[in-house]
Amino acid sequence: MSHPRRLMLSQKMLDQLGPRILQHTQGHAVELVSIESAVAAQRRDIDAVFISREVTGTSTKHEVHPELQACYDLMLANAGLQWVHIHSAGADRPVYQALQQRGVQVTTSSGANARVVAAMALAGLLALNKRFPILWAQQQRREWVPLLGAGRMPRDLPGQTATIVGWGPIGQELAQLLSTLGLHVIAVRTQDARPQGGVEMVRFEQMHTVLPRTDWLVLACPLTATTRGLVNAQVLQALPQGAHLINVARGEVVVQDELIPVLQSGHLGGAFLDVFEHEPLPATSPLWTLPNVMVTPHAAGHSDGNAQRVNQMFLDNLQRWVGDQALRQVAT
Amino acid sequence: MSHPRRLMLSQKMLDQLGPRILQHTQGHAVELVSIESAVAAQRRDIDAVFISREVTGTSTKHEVHPELQACYDLMLANAGLQWVHIHSAGADRPVYQALQQRGVQVTTSSGANARVVAAMALAGLLALNKRFPILWAQQQRREWVPLLGAGRMPRDLPGQTATIVGWGPIGQELAQLLSTLGLHVIAVRTQDARPQGGVEMVRFEQMHTVLPRTDWLVLACPLTATTRGLVNAQVLQALPQGAHLINVARGEVVVQDELIPVLQSGHLGGAFLDVFEHEPLPATSPLWTLPNVMVTPHAAGHSDGNAQRVNQMFLDNLQRWVGDQALRQVAT
Repeated sequence: MSHPRRLMLSQKMLDQLGPRILQHTQGHAVELVSIESAVAAQRRDIDAVFISREVTGTSTKHEVHPELQACYDLMLANAGLQWVHIHSAGADRPVYQALQQRGVQVTTSSGANARVVAAMALAGLLALNKRFPILWAQQQRREWVPLLGAGRMPRDLPGQTATIVGWGPIGQELAQLLSTLGLHVIAVRTQDARPQGGVEMVRFEQMHTVLPRTDWLVLACPLTATTRGLVNAQVLQALPQGAHLINVARGEVVVQDELIPVLQSGHLGGAFLDVFEHEPLPATSPLWTLPNVMVTPHAAGHSDGNAQRVNQMFLDNLQRWVGDQALRQVAT
Repeated sequence: MSHPRRLMLSQKMLDQLGPRILQHTQGHAVELVSIESAVAAQRRDIDAVFISREVTGTSTKHEVHPELQACYDLMLANAGLQWVHIHSAGADRPVYQALQQRGVQVTTSSGANARVVAAMALAGLLALNKRFPILWAQQQRREWVPLLGAGRMPRDLPGQTATIVGWGPIGQELAQLLSTLGLHVIAVRTQDARPQGGVEMVRFEQMHTVLPRTDWLVLACPLTATTRGLVNAQVLQALPQGAHLINVARGEVVVQDELIPVLQSGHLGGAFLDVFEHEPLPATSPLWTLPNVMVTPHAAGHSDGNAQRVNQMFLDNLQRWVGDQALRQVAT
């Protein structure tokens, strides 16, 4: 390139990472451009973008605030854009899909919050197992009623089976935690594999064979053509009476309209849902008030240590980019 | 003994365990007496008692229902009583203390629900770390607000320190779970010991030295002269700002009147409390409504697999008792 490489990032990251960016681009001319100024000037000479957490802010995939939309529009208008690094593990937002189709490399921060998300899935599983929805309702009423009797007594975790859909960093971390708690773990993944550390492995095509012995169906997969709409009425009905669903993946993996009836009928014992077909979950959704459903606002990945891990992944890829090396964690 | 040994137990256990009791007492004459009939006849010839879960029922240590009190009174009136096996891990109820002082052997079911209680402590820790009290309140209002910003963003668990008071089956199980999650674990115990599996060990006398670096103070100890009132204002103030307390041990380990102000002031970030100085927790207690406090009704040990484990512990000791061998898990 004859011109310096132009990297667009938030003013906050520009201030915070400036010196480290210099370290990671030594000997290469890089011009840092804030998103704010690039949008104001409608620049068309941007080569790379870093979408850090605060750039996304409280926008969701389905409801994008005007400031973020202006940033997305600018990226789409930059015909020379080569690379976008994003703070999330998944690159399923339409803007990233459109950029990828154009040949822009989109790299993710997959793994940066894997332990965080796995701990959230575990928190949800334990909260449902320990009947926390019942206990919180009792606390609100200042009622002291132990967990004795039918429909209230928790079940021993050892002897139960968790089927984890997705064998990425989150699924692997969660499998270790659940194994420590004594659960049998089955992983649903794209490739065949032998059992690992006691974890049984099946392919997506075989998922239906393990559902009848699944007490906890845990979704920790990316949104792909295989996983979109994967958990439909047929899958949910194949689970045993009283089984639970945990979704820390993407809302579109579940057919939400088919989930609600099996929760209402009591076929499912409960669900912990952090993600939804439309986010924010509309106030009219029955999911908010079903007694055995915990609704959280796509918060599974939030933790105070993420930013540092995401920044490091971005800087590592930046060093590779200026050195014309292959980037890591390229979304496909 | 010239007369058959007389064992008192609930009619339910008599029906359920009768054949197995025969197997475990082969060659020895044992008369089974139901609590109900023994109380009705005010028998004074009882040699041993099995207090199973349903005998205690919903009575607490502090509020004993008349039926259970009649059973306690009968035990106290039987001067020849030799042995009582109880379903709980702790033998701190006054009736057991009184019997022990008279030389009656009280054996506990310590360990029967250790994994269950450890999982409850973990459920509480994760629920507080993931800000579930905030998220549940939001769900009630159908509010979608992510966990971003000060006072809301969860903290990474790796790098945090949990100090577990008590190194019995519960503490050891919990240490393994927390280590898997990446926390540093310190155990407070009665004896000196080298670190085990990365767990740092300190004696009760040294507990104060580790409090300033304790993010999670987890109580999993029996109620003893050492632990009664252990967690007082001084201990709580020595914890760093924002630390959390988890109590799955006994309410009397904490000076409740000194806990409430450090929760109200925000010095503590929150608490998960399953046990209280008086149970049921009175409806007038401010603990019910403090925003970062989870109150559960002494339910940490409830699980559908406990009864079977307790029964096996009782039967093992029964075999020893009729064979004049030393009993196991004798409370001291």
